[in-house]
Amino acid sequence: MSPFTGSARTTEEWRHLRLTRDDGVATVTLARPEKLNALTFGAYADLRDLTAELARDGSVRALVLGGEGRGFCSGGDVDEIIGATLAMETGQLLDFNRMTGQVVRALRECPFPVVAAVHGVAAGAGAVLALAADFRVADPTARFAFLFTRVGLSGGDMGAAYLLPRVVGLGHATRLLMLGEQVRAAEAERIGLISVLAAEGRAGAEAAALARRLADGPALAHAQTKALLTAELDMPLAAAVELDAATQALLMNSADYAEFHAAFSERRAPQWKGR
Amino acid sequence: MSPFTGSARTTEEWRHLRLTRDDGVATVTLARPEKLNALTFGAYADLRDLTAELARDGSVRALVLGGEGRGFCSGGDVDEIIGATLAMETGQLLDFNRMTGQVVRALRECPFPVVAAVHGVAAGAGAVLALAADFRVADPTARFAFLFTRVGLSGGDMGAAYLLPRVVGLGHATRLLMLGEQVRAAEAERIGLISVLAAEGRAGAEAAALARRLADGPALAHAQTKALLTAELDMPLAAAVELDAATQALLMNSADYAEFHAAFSERRAPQWKGR
Amino acid sequence: MSPFTGSARTTEEWRHLRLTRDDGVATVTLARPEKLNALTFGAYADLRDLTAELARDGSVRALVLGGEGRGFCSGGDVDEIIGATLAMETGQLLDFNRMTGQVVRALRECPFPVVAAVHGVAAGAGAVLALAADFRVADPTARFAFLFTRVGLSGGDMGAAYLLPRVVGLGHATRLLMLGEQVRAAEAERIGLISVLAAEGRAGAEAAALARRLADGPALAHAQTKALLTAELDMPLAAAVELDAATQALLMNSADYAEFHAAFSERRAPQWKGR
Repeated sequence: MSPFTGSARTTEEWRHLRLTRDDGVATVTLARPEKLNALTFGAYADLRDLTAELARDGSVRALVLGGEGRGFCSGGDVDEIIGATLAMETGQLLDFNRMTGQVVRALRECPFPVVAAVHGVAAGAGAVLALAADFRVADPTARFAFLFTRVGLSGGDMGAAYLLPRVVGLGHATRLLMLGEQVRAAEAERIGLISVLAAEGRAGAEAAALARRLADGPALAHAQTKALLTAELDMPLAAAVELDAATQALLMNSADYAEFHAAFSERRAPQWKGR
Repeated sequence: MSPFTGSARTTEEWRHLRLTRDDGVATVTLARPEKLNALTFGAYADLRDLTAELARDGSVRALVLGGEGRGFCSGGDVDEIIGATLAMETGQLLDFNRMTGQVVRALRECPFPVVAAVHGVAAGAGAVLALAADFRVADPTARFAFLFTRVGLSGGDMGAAYLLPRVVGLGHATRLLMLGEQVRAAEAERIGLISVLAAEGRAGAEAAALARRLADGPALAHAQTKALLTAELDMPLAAAVELDAATQALLMNSADYAEFHAAFSERRAPQWKGR
Repeated sequence: MSPFTGSARTTEEWRHLRLTRDDGVATVTLARPEKLNALTFGAYADLRDLTAELARDGSVRALVLGGEGRGFCSGGDVDEIIGATLAMETGQLLDFNRMTGQVVRALRECPFPVVAAVHGVAAGAGAVLALAADFRVADPTARFAFLFTRVGLSGGDMGAAYLLPRVVGLGHATRLLMLGEQVRAAEAERIGLISVLAAEGRAGAEAAALARRLADGPALAHAQTKALLTAELDMPLAAAVELDAATQALLMNSADYAEFHAAFSERRAPQWKGR
């Protein structure tokens, strides 16, 4: 646990998703397979709060996000969410949409890499959750659909209009967000939306293996790489170069950097400590 | 017509391009085929003013931009523009170059998607007009050439040095803008410069079909998607997420969002109103 | 020599790299082939200082950066640099990392295009040097590896976390910087990391030919294209359009723009002066 923890208690039981932990790797599973893991108000809130708790915890070095059953996540539940929002006042609508955006910010800003394991449908908010991850490990059944305009809403949901052009370029992003069409795995790989293409049925296993490798490696270096990638999207070149310099100077005092040099000198593999 | 219209009268006759309108779809055709639709001072000014008038009009929900004859647009006319600018004073040169840039800003900032129908040559300013569109529907004869350096000018013309790296990445953009080489349709599709590849001779028809689909759909959602894509290129993540939240809260009060839910509940197709 | 030169003398002898000059083309060769051109403190400093001197010189219109022997550059020397930094104080570590970042800024901000000729390994700082160039001319033996995390450091080194997402997109950039895996030429070309794929053994010759063509062409236009591409990554659309307008107005007073028009009128090839 981080020493910078106040009075807030950690939550032992997560009702809207499944959490398992194994030696530095946390695995969050959307577990409502009868509804293709459609998200409820509680699921959004749990994703936001869980990511914050794991960030505070200090022992998590990689996070896997996957879905149980036939697909990854079909997005916000039509009955529970669309129906409910139609009855909301302006302030409530803003609160809800800020919450969903907070999930994306939490995934982008947490101090460990996030690996999405995608099979089957990743639609609406489900597609944006995958987009907000650092890695998308997908199998050939994966289908991404940013289908917000299909329900009458803006394609720019939860930061999608910010993130997608930075992943696949403005041309593809405009097409995907404006039309809400399904992108199958082959196209997703071609345009850079998939990080690792796994064999069918192997997305979960390969995502877990990648997370294990990240957690067992120089995890502080991984965390800083993620932090710089996130921050430098919003920085000019000169500031980015200065941030890189300060970060490397910091990490040159880390245990893992010294360990690399010792291992190299002794012609053995480094034993990473993640700090 | 928008209620936010002052005293300025609309222009009934456009002398430097052809405008047709059909139930929410405006089609602008560069119609100087004997000169491969080379742009004149009047054509730039008309493109800027027409886009502004259509934005004010309120009834346009999608715009098609195409060229008559053998190609899309060969760029600024060598005789009428290059020759004339050689005799201009500094202030006039700045006025001219600001005007061409205003065309690009108008296309990026107008409240409806713009579909460029590209066949044959799209060169110089013609290539940038296509680049500024939201969709580039092109057939296999399409050839893009950002040939500004070939006439001794900067490849960064009319915002091209801003837009092209955000569409195809900095490496390809540097090569295309610095060398001014022709990019044929196959490469343009591979690097993300083409949105939809049409069969030969079908760019205009497919662009019209896409515009029709956009205009008949949830057009306010499309317009907001475009606005967010444009704005969020220039915003940090946290601000983008906040803008998305405010926009979705707004659209959750729209007629089309309620219509989607009603249609979904009644198991019928939505009847979009575009508001 | 630029008239804006103060008292600082030019350096006649570069000890840590090889410099040749030929009619507007400067060629810098990393020439420590027995160590795969591993960089030393002196080599970083020379790259920074040499680029600044060439920028001040005024006669250089294109720069080729290559490596002698079996590869381009294997990055910072494990013995001379990693070993030495382990003994440094905080301020010295910051100085060192700022220096390496200054090399990247110098390559991005110098007033002439930089062409990297890449064969064999381009690893660590070597990969970032290639990334900072305007063109990467590579042959099929080229292997890029941003292997910083493999030594326990951040993948965001020398501006890599800023530049790489803007060249290949955030998804690929995250994978490459976080994992430090080798990217072979075929993949590098597919994701946009290679500008020109040369035949085996021909990267140097093709890079030299490209630099010759750039230097013999409208070199001021090339320089401004580079400056705008660099600056407009960090500017909003409206400001970029204004910068383009001012730049084109300036270049419309250039000798090369008038020469293009004269040559076009006389149906002959332009004789570029580069000003």
